[in-house]
Amino acid sequence: MSTERLIYLPLGGAGEIGMNAYVYGYGKPGKERLIVVDMGVAFPDMDGSPGVDLILPDITWLAERRDRIEAVFITHAHEDHVGAVSLTYDRLRAPIYARAFTANIARRKMEEQGHAKETVTTVSAWPEKVTAGPFTVGFLPISHSIPESSSLIIDSPEGRVIHSGDFKLDETPLVGEPFDPKAWAEVSKDGVKALICDSTNVFSPKPGRSEASVGPEITKLVQAASGMVVATTFASNVARVKTLAEAGAKAGRSIVLMGRAMKRMVEAAVETGVLKDFPKVVKPEDAAAIPRENLMLLVTGSQGERRAASAQLARGKYQGMELKEGDLFLFSSKTIPGNERGVIRIINSFSELGVDVVDDSTGLYHVSGHANRPDLERLTEIVKPQIVIPMHGEHRHLREHVKLAEANGMTGVLAVNGMMVDLSGNQPTIAEYIETGRTYLDGSVQIGALDGVVRDRIRMALNGLVVVTVILDEEDEPLGDPWCELMGLPETGRSKAALVDVLEADLGQWLARAGAKIIRDDEKLNEGLRRVARQTALDEIGKKPEVTVVVSRLS
Amino acid sequence: MSTERLIYLPLGGAGEIGMNAYVYGYGKPGKERLIVVDMGVAFPDMDGSPGVDLILPDITWLAERRDRIEAVFITHAHEDHVGAVSLTYDRLRAPIYARAFTANIARRKMEEQGHAKETVTTVSAWPEKVTAGPFTVGFLPISHSIPESSSLIIDSPEGRVIHSGDFKLDETPLVGEPFDPKAWAEVSKDGVKALICDSTNVFSPKPGRSEASVGPEITKLVQAASGMVVATTFASNVARVKTLAEAGAKAGRSIVLMGRAMKRMVEAAVETGVLKDFPKVVKPEDAAAIPRENLMLLVTGSQGERRAASAQLARGKYQGMELKEGDLFLFSSKTIPGNERGVIRIINSFSELGVDVVDDSTGLYHVSGHANRPDLERLTEIVKPQIVIPMHGEHRHLREHVKLAEANGMTGVLAVNGMMVDLSGNQPTIAEYIETGRTYLDGSVQIGALDGVVRDRIRMALNGLVVVTVILDEEDEPLGDPWCELMGLPETGRSKAALVDVLEADLGQWLARAGAKIIRDDEKLNEGLRRVARQTALDEIGKKPEVTVVVSRLS
Repeated sequence: MSTERLIYLPLGGAGEIGMNAYVYGYGKPGKERLIVVDMGVAFPDMDGSPGVDLILPDITWLAERRDRIEAVFITHAHEDHVGAVSLTYDRLRAPIYARAFTANIARRKMEEQGHAKETVTTVSAWPEKVTAGPFTVGFLPISHSIPESSSLIIDSPEGRVIHSGDFKLDETPLVGEPFDPKAWAEVSKDGVKALICDSTNVFSPKPGRSEASVGPEITKLVQAASGMVVATTFASNVARVKTLAEAGAKAGRSIVLMGRAMKRMVEAAVETGVLKDFPKVVKPEDAAAIPRENLMLLVTGSQGERRAASAQLARGKYQGMELKEGDLFLFSSKTIPGNERGVIRIINSFSELGVDVVDDSTGLYHVSGHANRPDLERLTEIVKPQIVIPMHGEHRHLREHVKLAEANGMTGVLAVNGMMVDLSGNQPTIAEYIETGRTYLDGSVQIGALDGVVRDRIRMALNGLVVVTVILDEEDEPLGDPWCELMGLPETGRSKAALVDVLEADLGQWLARAGAKIIRDDEKLNEGLRRVARQTALDEIGKKPEVTVVVSRLS
Repeated sequence: MSTERLIYLPLGGAGEIGMNAYVYGYGKPGKERLIVVDMGVAFPDMDGSPGVDLILPDITWLAERRDRIEAVFITHAHEDHVGAVSLTYDRLRAPIYARAFTANIARRKMEEQGHAKETVTTVSAWPEKVTAGPFTVGFLPISHSIPESSSLIIDSPEGRVIHSGDFKLDETPLVGEPFDPKAWAEVSKDGVKALICDSTNVFSPKPGRSEASVGPEITKLVQAASGMVVATTFASNVARVKTLAEAGAKAGRSIVLMGRAMKRMVEAAVETGVLKDFPKVVKPEDAAAIPRENLMLLVTGSQGERRAASAQLARGKYQGMELKEGDLFLFSSKTIPGNERGVIRIINSFSELGVDVVDDSTGLYHVSGHANRPDLERLTEIVKPQIVIPMHGEHRHLREHVKLAEANGMTGVLAVNGMMVDLSGNQPTIAEYIETGRTYLDGSVQIGALDGVVRDRIRMALNGLVVVTVILDEEDEPLGDPWCELMGLPETGRSKAALVDVLEADLGQWLARAGAKIIRDDEKLNEGLRRVARQTALDEIGKKPEVTVVVSRLS
């Protein structure tokens, strides 16, 4: 096999929602020239990644082939598509292409990491094209919930593939370009080999609703409110931020933005001209002078994040603002699975303050930014691709989307992260399995998800920790008893004596009886002390803690 | 104020769903004779209570008044009502009353903790009554999702109050007695002072549906399935377990029970005669001989619990059974907020195996066991209480339920855990605030939620840990450099040198410069070493770890 081939390889986003990173390649096997589509992050949680700041795709495979990467293309400015672009730049060093608004956001990130603005090149919408090795790539506008979202029209000698990016079919999207069926028919008319397609809402059976349907309902709600109104949504849902601000302005309220991401996103959108006629904004410090019934706050924290503005307001005063009985708090957002507990915590805190909370349970105040099942069918009907490869979804979404494509007479390919698909020829085939995974940004350091660092944290959290210290003199005789520090463990157990005393007594006894052969052998000594500590703890408190042994030899 | 009064005091369940424990008292202030209604548990999570086994109400207030407790009454056998009864018995030592099935479950728990069966007394349904000091208490049957659920009719010299327990208004509940409006009208006809009422579903706008509506749908689903069928629900939802088993039997399938709780609950229900005509059950080891299309497994783990049967099956073979392409897995349950991640993990694992998963999103295969908003209104219309006190709900539920009661012309009282309400006289008043909280069962030890044990675990999980060891000789001179053990931290940071080496070098330098005054002072020495370790880590890895300092003085 030395003929050229066209390959598709997801490194993130195919098997999860978030952390999008897809690779396309063309060339002889093992020598393909590569382009990367999106470089996003996912968000950590206490269950699986405590203490971690961000989750990135593992780009080892790409970094090892850095000389073959022509370019990185970013479909839109959501964090799960652009969030890792500056964090991986050191290892990839490939030029980054995006439309103006996305490029603005990407450049801010690059500068924060000390990279030049010039690493990011602004591209105009289709029909402008970027040549990247054997590929030409164009940004075809499509509606989503952030300005300038685009699908990528990717041409190679093997034909055209379309990478949908995140999208919905909205002909009145408020920000960003409306869905234009004619433009889509036009780019598809000569045949599309494969549509690589957003799968998030494949389980939603009804056609999606337009962003324009939300505004009037929110306006009604705000107009009927008698106290202060606070609304939250993803700051990056620029469409919704605009909808909310306009609803507030129509109800005669001054708009206050709270939370860093909210201020930043509006700033970028105004700066690049994609957010026109945004209502006048008042600073929190100036809002104090305005009667509360004339205020509408737009705040971060729609997912219950502890440090975001909504959680701060739920706990009390924040930037001089404070909610009270008679105020209204609106979640103009969907709670992402896994975030329920945080959101409910906030709702209950507001309940204690006497604040009325409205969420999206009525379906009036939020619409999704993704294409529902009938919308996915509508798009494929226009594009008529030979092959549909679902992406941006958990396994269940991808599987369902493959079924849907096949029910509609197309070839569906279930390709999860690491599965390299050869799109050449008549039938797609699996070319190779690449090792993929997750990289954690932890503080300022990137660590592999399987490095054991986070595993150790989880173990300490579940089991508590005993640190056993032993000092041995020049003759390998213990200097005094071993002693213990306990962390995350109860002070007393079954015998009612202090757990630390019981542990030290048992360890001391064991050490006194241990022969020289054990005491001279670091490994055996550690293992013995560890075993005794765990057994004693089990007897006393009914659980086996993590144990770390520190042996100091004065010799 | 030395006249008698009637008090109500929630210690758990009013401000959360779970951990129910309510106190009623009658007598002179401070000398009331007390009864306790329910003694339940809540379940821990990684976010707030990592490593904890169960959460119990803090019963310190009750334990200090042990001589005044007449009895404990258990409304029904769900864990959040009966789960803590054996774990608190040592401190309360009060006789426990329940109906036969509930008593059976309670006795199993008492025996496990080494208490006599005789601590639990079986009571028949209303009109039988138990005299407990100034109270008489009767168990009025009401429909829920477990046999013999009851509301308590509590009479005192101050009149009658009714404690609803968990309930729905189901006239065809399959197990347990149907809701009987006549019986309720009868007990209410002479006037009810207060209804203390389940609030779980106050936000559900439509009348609840009967358990009987679920069976035919499940039967259809099972009959249409071509492979093995596996269904999960709470084992304690005995009604659903029966519905599922009957659907399987109707479809000609042999029923297999998997998971300890499932087998146990069916056993108790059959033993006490409340579960009649349960289909014949086949053991997992005998199921191997039966074609998979003739099998229906009922398994634990509807909430995605890692160790339950459904998670085990998602990971592969379990007790000889293994799912594969073409099989069907049914969640006949609602995912409790906070458990989504675990449930989704399982669904995706099944998706990888090619198993079709059906959940309750269609509303066909699950109904709630709690009264919805119109049902709550219907019950109060029959009972016509002067006062409604919402319980069994988060703050938002209680608040909404108070509003509902007041909209219907009754007095609503928002009483959260620790708020003692005086129900004597014409208007309820807040008599006192009691300190309440949560107690964690951690291994075999009960610890206070605010003892700091779990806080330390969370900190280690978020920040990682550095243990610094220093040995000082008889002259307070450091014996060698300080050394560090790292847990849950990356091996290298900014400088690319091993983090442990950088830490030890910085700590050694600081120690070499520290004066005798600091070195002789344990507190100052600890504080200094801690500060240096945190600062160095911040420079190197961008985060400040937890630091434990162990100083060994050879003097």
